[in-house]
Amino acid sequence: MIIVMNHNAPKASIDRVVGEIERMGCAAHLSAGRFRTVIGAVGEEGQIDQNHLATLDGVEKVVPIMKPYKLASREFHEDDTVVEVGGGSVPVVKVGGSHAACIAGPCAVENLEMLTRIAGKVHEGGATILRGGVYKPRTSPYSFQGLGVEALKWMRATGDQLGMPICVEVMDTRQVEQMEPLIDCWQIGARNMQNFDLLREVGKTRKPVLLKRGLAATVKDWLLSAEYVLSQGNRGVILCERGIKTFEDSIRYSMDISSIPVARQLSHLPMIVDPSHAAGKRDYVSSLALAGMAAGAHGIIVEVHYCPSEAQCDGPQALLPETFKELMVQLRQIAAILGKTFAENAAPVTV
Amino acid sequence: MIIVMNHNAPKASIDRVVGEIERMGCAAHLSAGRFRTVIGAVGEEGQIDQNHLATLDGVEKVVPIMKPYKLASREFHEDDTVVEVGGGSVPVVKVGGSHAACIAGPCAVENLEMLTRIAGKVHEGGATILRGGVYKPRTSPYSFQGLGVEALKWMRATGDQLGMPICVEVMDTRQVEQMEPLIDCWQIGARNMQNFDLLREVGKTRKPVLLKRGLAATVKDWLLSAEYVLSQGNRGVILCERGIKTFEDSIRYSMDISSIPVARQLSHLPMIVDPSHAAGKRDYVSSLALAGMAAGAHGIIVEVHYCPSEAQCDGPQALLPETFKELMVQLRQIAAILGKTFAENAAPVTV
Amino acid sequence: MIIVMNHNAPKASIDRVVGEIERMGCAAHLSAGRFRTVIGAVGEEGQIDQNHLATLDGVEKVVPIMKPYKLASREFHEDDTVVEVGGGSVPVVKVGGSHAACIAGPCAVENLEMLTRIAGKVHEGGATILRGGVYKPRTSPYSFQGLGVEALKWMRATGDQLGMPICVEVMDTRQVEQMEPLIDCWQIGARNMQNFDLLREVGKTRKPVLLKRGLAATVKDWLLSAEYVLSQGNRGVILCERGIKTFEDSIRYSMDISSIPVARQLSHLPMIVDPSHAAGKRDYVSSLALAGMAAGAHGIIVEVHYCPSEAQCDGPQALLPETFKELMVQLRQIAAILGKTFAENAAPVTV
Amino acid sequence: MIIVMNHNAPKASIDRVVGEIERMGCAAHLSAGRFRTVIGAVGEEGQIDQNHLATLDGVEKVVPIMKPYKLASREFHEDDTVVEVGGGSVPVVKVGGSHAACIAGPCAVENLEMLTRIAGKVHEGGATILRGGVYKPRTSPYSFQGLGVEALKWMRATGDQLGMPICVEVMDTRQVEQMEPLIDCWQIGARNMQNFDLLREVGKTRKPVLLKRGLAATVKDWLLSAEYVLSQGNRGVILCERGIKTFEDSIRYSMDISSIPVARQLSHLPMIVDPSHAAGKRDYVSSLALAGMAAGAHGIIVEVHYCPSEAQCDGPQALLPETFKELMVQLRQIAAILGKTFAENAAPVTV
Repeated sequence: MIIVMNHNAPKASIDRVVGEIERMGCAAHLSAGRFRTVIGAVGEEGQIDQNHLATLDGVEKVVPIMKPYKLASREFHEDDTVVEVGGGSVPVVKVGGSHAACIAGPCAVENLEMLTRIAGKVHEGGATILRGGVYKPRTSPYSFQGLGVEALKWMRATGDQLGMPICVEVMDTRQVEQMEPLIDCWQIGARNMQNFDLLREVGKTRKPVLLKRGLAATVKDWLLSAEYVLSQGNRGVILCERGIKTFEDSIRYSMDISSIPVARQLSHLPMIVDPSHAAGKRDYVSSLALAGMAAGAHGIIVEVHYCPSEAQCDGPQALLPETFKELMVQLRQIAAILGKTFAENAAPVTV
Repeated sequence: MIIVMNHNAPKASIDRVVGEIERMGCAAHLSAGRFRTVIGAVGEEGQIDQNHLATLDGVEKVVPIMKPYKLASREFHEDDTVVEVGGGSVPVVKVGGSHAACIAGPCAVENLEMLTRIAGKVHEGGATILRGGVYKPRTSPYSFQGLGVEALKWMRATGDQLGMPICVEVMDTRQVEQMEPLIDCWQIGARNMQNFDLLREVGKTRKPVLLKRGLAATVKDWLLSAEYVLSQGNRGVILCERGIKTFEDSIRYSMDISSIPVARQLSHLPMIVDPSHAAGKRDYVSSLALAGMAAGAHGIIVEVHYCPSEAQCDGPQALLPETFKELMVQLRQIAAILGKTFAENAAPVTV
Repeated sequence: MIIVMNHNAPKASIDRVVGEIERMGCAAHLSAGRFRTVIGAVGEEGQIDQNHLATLDGVEKVVPIMKPYKLASREFHEDDTVVEVGGGSVPVVKVGGSHAACIAGPCAVENLEMLTRIAGKVHEGGATILRGGVYKPRTSPYSFQGLGVEALKWMRATGDQLGMPICVEVMDTRQVEQMEPLIDCWQIGARNMQNFDLLREVGKTRKPVLLKRGLAATVKDWLLSAEYVLSQGNRGVILCERGIKTFEDSIRYSMDISSIPVARQLSHLPMIVDPSHAAGKRDYVSSLALAGMAAGAHGIIVEVHYCPSEAQCDGPQALLPETFKELMVQLRQIAAILGKTFAENAAPVTV
Repeated sequence: MIIVMNHNAPKASIDRVVGEIERMGCAAHLSAGRFRTVIGAVGEEGQIDQNHLATLDGVEKVVPIMKPYKLASREFHEDDTVVEVGGGSVPVVKVGGSHAACIAGPCAVENLEMLTRIAGKVHEGGATILRGGVYKPRTSPYSFQGLGVEALKWMRATGDQLGMPICVEVMDTRQVEQMEPLIDCWQIGARNMQNFDLLREVGKTRKPVLLKRGLAATVKDWLLSAEYVLSQGNRGVILCERGIKTFEDSIRYSMDISSIPVARQLSHLPMIVDPSHAAGKRDYVSSLALAGMAAGAHGIIVEVHYCPSEAQCDGPQALLPETFKELMVQLRQIAAILGKTFAENAAPVTV
């Protein structure tokens, strides 16, 4: 940690900072420049209370050198982590390293029939994990809020029938116990990326966690949220970029394409993109999906509906099954250029 | 609602949109311009499924005319709402209309002694509501997370002794039941502004809710979150601006000063500012507090510590008691210019 | 144009708005809803003064329906525009439609020898247009500002020798006259995207214009700046996405990948990406370039240096010649998937 | 300057960095921590080429300690600078320190009659400097672009008659020579904040410069632009906050209220706010103006029109003369609380 003193900080202030650093079990290295003194705190950065130093008299700023997350960092774990989703009643799907995955399905599960139909289509198109919301985070209290546990049972049955692990959003700590035996992968939505109690609860389970990036979260914030999960002993975190809030108003959220190479450099965790929620509009979904793969992602999560105008939630962003199929063809080609392979799906089970 | 068609939308598409609008119980008014057709849906906008219309062929965009929130809007309730905080073991403090309030205290309650000392100081300085965190949302899992229910009991006792209602942050739906009898005002943090289950739970109680604005939330999103609380029957929402994420990196968050006149025009709810969390640095707290009052806020929530370098949380942004006292003098003067009055505090109880 | 009235606007206000619309030569269509009246102005939207209507009593907001640019819009010109760069002393390079182009070279021209060497390398690697700054926009007045017209002559000679058109940034209206005969393509930097006098001056010439997106410009603002050039009779505008300012601080600017499908849908103009300036760091340049092509761009502009640590400007973001070569191989493959082809370069001229 | 090495940087890389620092005339201080080595470069930071060091092998990041601007910094000039506007044919108006100023007038000068009328009103209301655009930066090439030099002569005559210095926007380096004898204060618009040639040209004159903050500029960028002007020998820079681009869409730009205490701490230059362009809507202008003063600004620049619906430019944001008058009363009260005084105006000259 580097402590930069004000340009006229008196010797007493400098001595106080040095004393505090030594009290915390670190060594202090002074560099007295012409205009200001800079103090390096050498030792275990985790032992140093940055806030405390920042409040001392004469301190202009404190610059941490180490990253604030550990288990999520590539320095801690050099090779790409490969997360396994599924097992038990469904095959295992790998995500990470050279393994790319496509997670697809409806935005919200509205009834069994539509779920069966969409799941069949995405399975046929090449998706290997099934998505579908049963609790929906809606900005308006007057919008459709999801069908809850009944819809979750339909998801389980459909996934089992098609041989696809299921990925389902959890919104509240009180849902964790009931959902855990039924799902293969937790989804934490963007608005819950810093719901720290929820992160801890899913971290205590042993099901992998798809962690969407918050709308105002830096890559560092995001990796700190991953650290919450990892620190509970759950090593199966999949990062998911889904767009951030910017001033641009021609699209719902701006997919931060650079977060892919940045997060992949800083962390060993697999990373996918969600072009549907970033775009908010069908026309742009395929371009964003292809861009994500080309930038180095390990796959996509995408919404598909055979009749978007009937969807109760986010219809405008759902791909039609035939567009999804075409997209998968191009995604496989781009994955190959980048040294990744999408898992092949088993033939659809006859329904 | 206005539906703008593509510039070459065929008649069949236009007829389909008109048919759907009528099926939803509204009337459709066509304006066929030279380049494109615009369709007005007239009737109860709440009956119209905007997403559905947006997915129909030939539709370029859908422009809602009505605001998506109702109970929070000034159209629904023309006069300023005055929220009453306290009652029972402590006096009632009014917030809203011509009533300004100062909520102050430590960031986190660390022990009873520091709480007693800080509470005495802020009471003496002019605060009428006591704040203090017992569950702390921390970006890092390795940071101090709060002392929980024991600290909450200290808060209750201290508030009662000084005659100050207490405002305490709730982070998880599982905490609501236990906290409700002990607190006077819920605080919902910025990162939970769209934790919809939590909003619903506090909405079911009859204690007022201080609702901080999310870091990526527009004023519209914020009022929709207020609507979640209001829609459960709880009419005591106090909005709190605490800064948004922008590209500016000289300060922690950018306090969005314009949200004050904007939200006050759109909504009848009282509104305060939190200069401490916006600034993240003591030097800027007073300027932001004064600016907030001058822009029309109904008060502030601010962190105070007699020895910030000992604080376990956010020490760099805590005001010293003497600075807080000076600030209150200027705040009262500005409030007077804007036609508001801060409640006078009872003399501090001898401890 | 749609004029939304306040929910309690009196009849006199409505009549005034209708009168003003008719005075401007348009027809006014009224939709009197239960809560508010909405007025559609039908006719030539260009004839309507939106600002004027917005200031009238009782008007809540004015929603334009038509796009504010015309010549830049795909409605005006349905097919992709193919811009031709070069001719005369160098071959023509096409950009747009199925034609992809790679513009490469040093950030700034520092001396003839380094220019010759880098130009040879990028030519060999597959670039077909040569870039190189002779006037440099630098945020600090104390940084290297470019060598001016002498460096421009070196650029011209080098381009001619290798058979590569040259693309050079212009910063000031006073430079236009002298530069015009020497360059093949103007570059307008991000910070000058709304230097309207400069846009007009290059618009009066007949050399194509590479128009970088401003750091705070929406896609709409950008297309309006393109309109400034086009409205002077110059139809050769190439849009260039180079990142926008967001809160993310792990990278210099956030490349707005969604601007590619959005701008391509709204406009017929060709579009390339500048991964070097967005990233600011070599490690991320290739990922962003590949993502840009996958999202639908018509090529890239990229900085290359054989010894970045000697560069006087932006060394950290320059690709090494061998990395550039590898990138071009992958870019060609992705272009093929998207139905585009990079022009093949003539064999490097023996120097 | 601090150079942080990668956590596994070999000794050869460290030696190379040390060698380069010494070659640049500075001393290198090594701190070899357990995980990585940090190198302090001690000496004249201006001698160190940060970019060069950042490109060397094994370097993770370079952290500058000194600020990149000098003449603009409070370390260089501890006391508040008081800029004098006017002199010669009009009285001098001071801005800075305890001197607050109100600059008011129409957005654009449209004809002599409207200018005379508005100038009389703002003079009567308490403005001491007259504003009025003669060249207008407009995002659309089809909007009114200003009347040029003829309008400037009207400005000069009107200012002289009322005893008010005039402040006029310059957009192009070619306008500087002609405008210089006629104006009292240059205005550099937000879109030209990084038009470096223009900054240099006005820096060579001896008329003060009102420097608006760019829409995507950090406070640091802004002070670097001030440095461009100051480095040419012109010491009369007045900073003007006018809003930045954020995701919030309920207002045109978000006035960054915290830039006031931040810039005032970092710099000695006077600072005013422009609530009109930030708000874009009359209703919010007064709140933002009051907030700016309360946060520590040295005044405001504001647009006034007696009949906004007739304005050719930005009518929706113009204050009515009576609202302006009321605002000035409150501004004077807030200024007094903050220890500042608005200059009193001479009685309006009988026209």
